[in-house]
Amino acid sequence: MLVINNYKEMQKYSFELIAQKQKIGFVPTMGFLHEGHGSLIRKIREISDVVVLSIFVNPSQFAPGEDYERYPRNFERDKQIAEDNGCDIIFHPDPINMYPIGYGTEVKLKKLIKTFEGSSRPTHFDGVATVVAKLFNIVMPTYAIFGQKDYQQTLVVRQLAKDLNFPCEIIIAPTYREHDGLAMSSRNVYLSPDERLSASILFHSLEKARAAIMGGERNRKIINAIMHNSLRSLQGIRIDYASSANAESLEEPDIFLSGDKVVLLIAVYIGKTRLIDNLVVNVPAISTTLEDRFVEGV
Amino acid sequence: MLVINNYKEMQKYSFELIAQKQKIGFVPTMGFLHEGHGSLIRKIREISDVVVLSIFVNPSQFAPGEDYERYPRNFERDKQIAEDNGCDIIFHPDPINMYPIGYGTEVKLKKLIKTFEGSSRPTHFDGVATVVAKLFNIVMPTYAIFGQKDYQQTLVVRQLAKDLNFPCEIIIAPTYREHDGLAMSSRNVYLSPDERLSASILFHSLEKARAAIMGGERNRKIINAIMHNSLRSLQGIRIDYASSANAESLEEPDIFLSGDKVVLLIAVYIGKTRLIDNLVVNVPAISTTLEDRFVEGV
Repeated sequence: MLVINNYKEMQKYSFELIAQKQKIGFVPTMGFLHEGHGSLIRKIREISDVVVLSIFVNPSQFAPGEDYERYPRNFERDKQIAEDNGCDIIFHPDPINMYPIGYGTEVKLKKLIKTFEGSSRPTHFDGVATVVAKLFNIVMPTYAIFGQKDYQQTLVVRQLAKDLNFPCEIIIAPTYREHDGLAMSSRNVYLSPDERLSASILFHSLEKARAAIMGGERNRKIINAIMHNSLRSLQGIRIDYASSANAESLEEPDIFLSGDKVVLLIAVYIGKTRLIDNLVVNVPAISTTLEDRFVEGV
Repeated sequence: MLVINNYKEMQKYSFELIAQKQKIGFVPTMGFLHEGHGSLIRKIREISDVVVLSIFVNPSQFAPGEDYERYPRNFERDKQIAEDNGCDIIFHPDPINMYPIGYGTEVKLKKLIKTFEGSSRPTHFDGVATVVAKLFNIVMPTYAIFGQKDYQQTLVVRQLAKDLNFPCEIIIAPTYREHDGLAMSSRNVYLSPDERLSASILFHSLEKARAAIMGGERNRKIINAIMHNSLRSLQGIRIDYASSANAESLEEPDIFLSGDKVVLLIAVYIGKTRLIDNLVVNVPAISTTLEDRFVEGV
């Protein structure tokens, strides 16, 4: 496995691969890899000739006061995990190589970025969109894979890749979970043993809301209340948001209709650690009479 | 010569060229080609294996009320001029192919865009930066050439290409002028015969300011006044700006120093037609005593 630190070298390498008509699979990460990242590498491996994994804790997607400085890092361990899962190249640039003195360009989405994560972290998605555009120009991937755990990010990346005509197919992989349902995240390392035990409440709250939808519930506020009530059963939890929305547009109608694809989104603080999770649910068909009643009830 | 209308086809074609290690030279234009464009094609031809010229009147860089609708278009004539000058491929997409329904991403610079053209046309450079990023992802050029006539645009494109890590070298070509000094522009066609005769006043005013700098003038306001006075000799002219600035940063110090690279920038309306022009001047060395006097005078 090769480690490349400089973006120009990475670019040169990718041009060689493209000249050889190799399909480049790309796994962008902030490092501190876990089994979720391993599954992304293995999944993209299946369709790519060469797998590039980037490790870059991107300063521009952290706001002042967030955990940029203390974000966990362990390059030697990351290298091992990447290699064990079949990665060919690690791209591991210095911040100064990515954002030199005089840097001054941003990629900004005009939609999808105001609510949920964007409401709690107003500059976050500008930082994400910008670094993804940079990384795509450096790695020039055929495929890029992102985990569904960062749901809103997957929408942002899809939108920007399409809008800016990146010749790269975006692949979204299911969230990788611990046995008790907790979504794998590099930030889980911040949790104390007690907090870790409680943290499965995110997944269980999502599951309760999903069960309600499958049972016929379509009122957005009631669905949100089910998640809030479930989360509040944990003492000391601080809910940032627990909401449902259209899974494509993130719009929040009063009532969902059968056939709608709905995303359930949760962000909470357990102790000092901010955790997010989500589930996508297809609203099932119900009898026309019942549907009429719901719509009239708006 | 090949004409490609769809961005996916263009991308596919460029991938083939890259696989053959061909150097792609790119001339982005809004069409209605003139001898200035011809010179760009011939210049990039010298260093490229394949020359791609795009013709796209980019709606996103025009504000409401500007001349997007009436911007001159003549595709058949453009094709002839492009071919005569050695162009290999014209990329000529539909607006809907470039900005489909649901489009929502912008590339924005944080500097260089507020003053001069950016002051008169506040959203102009967002539109330029965005379409250039899109075109670079579609054409995947080795080199892209821009005329110096749109001076501020050349700075914007250089900044964004560097910041977003586009693997493309930006080449700036000198402004191509008519015999009386008028910078060639597709918009010159708007001028009446009388206006056309008067329009050389832009170049003559730039020349007067350059002569003053070469003669020792370093006070920015005096240099600007020289251009204003010269332009005002034309009845009915409306000056948008006539200014001097640091040629790299566009900063406007009170006094320029020897060794400074200064750009003289003019935008005026002659009748209803908005014209721009510029000159870059290297401030010559003068005696230390004289320089001290100027600096003390700040």
